[in-house]
Amino acid sequence: MNLNFRVEARCPDTEARLTRFRTAHGEIETPIFMPVGTVGSVKSITAHELEAVGASIILGNTYHLAVRPGIETLRALGGMHTMAHWRRSILTDSGGFQVLSLAKLRKITEQGVAFRNHVDGGLMNLTPEYSIEIQEAIGSDIMMCLDHLPPVDSPRREMEEAMARTTRWAKRCLVARKAEDRAIFGIVQGGVDLELRARHIDELCSESFEGFALGGLSVGESMPQMYDTVEFAAPRLPAGKPRYLMGVGRPVDIIESVARGVDMFDCVYPTRNARKGNVFADLGRRNVNVRNARYKNERGPIEEGCPCFTCRHYGVGYLRHLLISGEMLSGRLLTIHNLYVYLDLMRRVRLALRQGSFAAFLRAWRGGVAIGEVIC
Amino acid sequence: MNLNFRVEARCPDTEARLTRFRTAHGEIETPIFMPVGTVGSVKSITAHELEAVGASIILGNTYHLAVRPGIETLRALGGMHTMAHWRRSILTDSGGFQVLSLAKLRKITEQGVAFRNHVDGGLMNLTPEYSIEIQEAIGSDIMMCLDHLPPVDSPRREMEEAMARTTRWAKRCLVARKAEDRAIFGIVQGGVDLELRARHIDELCSESFEGFALGGLSVGESMPQMYDTVEFAAPRLPAGKPRYLMGVGRPVDIIESVARGVDMFDCVYPTRNARKGNVFADLGRRNVNVRNARYKNERGPIEEGCPCFTCRHYGVGYLRHLLISGEMLSGRLLTIHNLYVYLDLMRRVRLALRQGSFAAFLRAWRGGVAIGEVIC
Repeated sequence: MNLNFRVEARCPDTEARLTRFRTAHGEIETPIFMPVGTVGSVKSITAHELEAVGASIILGNTYHLAVRPGIETLRALGGMHTMAHWRRSILTDSGGFQVLSLAKLRKITEQGVAFRNHVDGGLMNLTPEYSIEIQEAIGSDIMMCLDHLPPVDSPRREMEEAMARTTRWAKRCLVARKAEDRAIFGIVQGGVDLELRARHIDELCSESFEGFALGGLSVGESMPQMYDTVEFAAPRLPAGKPRYLMGVGRPVDIIESVARGVDMFDCVYPTRNARKGNVFADLGRRNVNVRNARYKNERGPIEEGCPCFTCRHYGVGYLRHLLISGEMLSGRLLTIHNLYVYLDLMRRVRLALRQGSFAAFLRAWRGGVAIGEVIC
Repeated sequence: MNLNFRVEARCPDTEARLTRFRTAHGEIETPIFMPVGTVGSVKSITAHELEAVGASIILGNTYHLAVRPGIETLRALGGMHTMAHWRRSILTDSGGFQVLSLAKLRKITEQGVAFRNHVDGGLMNLTPEYSIEIQEAIGSDIMMCLDHLPPVDSPRREMEEAMARTTRWAKRCLVARKAEDRAIFGIVQGGVDLELRARHIDELCSESFEGFALGGLSVGESMPQMYDTVEFAAPRLPAGKPRYLMGVGRPVDIIESVARGVDMFDCVYPTRNARKGNVFADLGRRNVNVRNARYKNERGPIEEGCPCFTCRHYGVGYLRHLLISGEMLSGRLLTIHNLYVYLDLMRRVRLALRQGSFAAFLRAWRGGVAIGEVIC
């Protein structure tokens, strides 16, 4: 399919770029962050709230949705757009990552991955073809190829084998696609070995994928290793297609990766942290722990002037009370704020790129209030 | 204070009546159902959603809010209206019921109830005066007197002592009130003993309360006992003041109690059941268990034609998937539907009373689709 991808602006000082493309469910401007809708909802919030915070694309997890409700029900219910009343775009992962992290009794062969799922122990055989079949049942606009992701510290020989298999599986995914108006992205592996990355990019990027992702990062390597790998790999991906850094991350990781040439991001970081009471302020540079006793009697919002639903209507003291009392409403209100901060940050990044001021934005962002400690 | 209470219509065939009164936060038309906001939120939903389903008054639990966040924080945060961004009326219970059901190491004296709370074991001394002080800190529009509620099967002698103490405590509550624009309701005890009920009504209803509640029901007695007690007691309460049946109940209980002369109701029944997947349809006469496998592939809403947010946007199959997957969103969406059904039922009851057709409505409601089994 044709995403009508175009680069609308380039930062002259960094690898950052403003791009635009179109899926069957609307226009997407990048750099963009995709909230994660793990098992069919971005936890605790509705499609209306996602639209209100400015989301144009969300991520669905193929593994989770394949296990429950399962492919037949996904089809019967009309896929995730209809089920979740979400009108905009959906990207789905391949399921491979969750098979490795959640499922039991895995057996990887050239055919695919056989495993027992973590919910009811049911047996499933996730092949490249079946992954695409599930993703099509979900109604995904951007499907990811099933990849083989070895541990980050695997011997080079294993990394090479995984890369070669990932390439073979990726080609099978392209063949398996039935829905012609849906895109497929290939996933570049190679860990933090730049030579392997270069080789895999060469192998994969000659294939007719509509976009490319950097996989196998944010899985335990150090931050400098990740940044170096992104800095090396992102600009080597085809300039005429979207570039997606999977599973990243914190606001700082996103900003630094945009500067290194990445267009698309997803992570549970803002949503999972929100439910624990860890929220962001100051364009993601400041962390606020809502549980902190200092907020007990605070009537003001999380962030003064923040136009999100939560900050317009609720004070931190009340949010803290709800959180500490275990009230479900707290997770929802804090999620709305965190997603607003993330998506607002991305809007400002795009604005800076359009205005040709991204390098200045980057300096200001980096030089602002000290970025808090990791609150994962 | 003056609630400007007036009876706007009476059913010629039953004790049902349409009434209207005004608190500091707006007009209330009865018969009315009050959703329960236990610890400062009606679990999982916002004030905006409460307004959207048509709530004009919600209930706050004094015990829970006194334990957490506590009276100082309630004051610092401006009370429940400000905290929860709720603009309409609030009724608060006295805390007495939860002290008996949740707290530990209770000691009841003429002064009040000393206990250790269920959260951190902190010691609290709930006197009639302190109950009113907390309710004023919550910003309650209608405060309830601290009452002494003995078990429903207590010996008559104990019931009489509890009644007498309830009367003395009620008078102390009136004296303790500082906020002159807030109402206080007295609570009539007497269990299911009609003679005791009559006596306590005589004792209490000569006092200058703005309304009266029937307490000590829906606590383990049989349904016929409850209906008989309501039928006896409700019409004996002053006709010129609101009548509130505490902690009741199922749709059928509400309809039957309206017919026996009750104006106001509260219960966690619709909200607690919603979170478990038990929802209502057909004006509360039909129960739908969303977990039922028959709904697995159901694209239609809980109830065809229901204009609530949930039914307008989501099908039962998706709601079932969210519920079974433990997604927080399910509790919220099902709560919205159940509250809509309850408040819509109350609207229709009021409309029937206004049109003089309540007796016909009652016959139709009773004679319609068979009322399902209790799903508590």
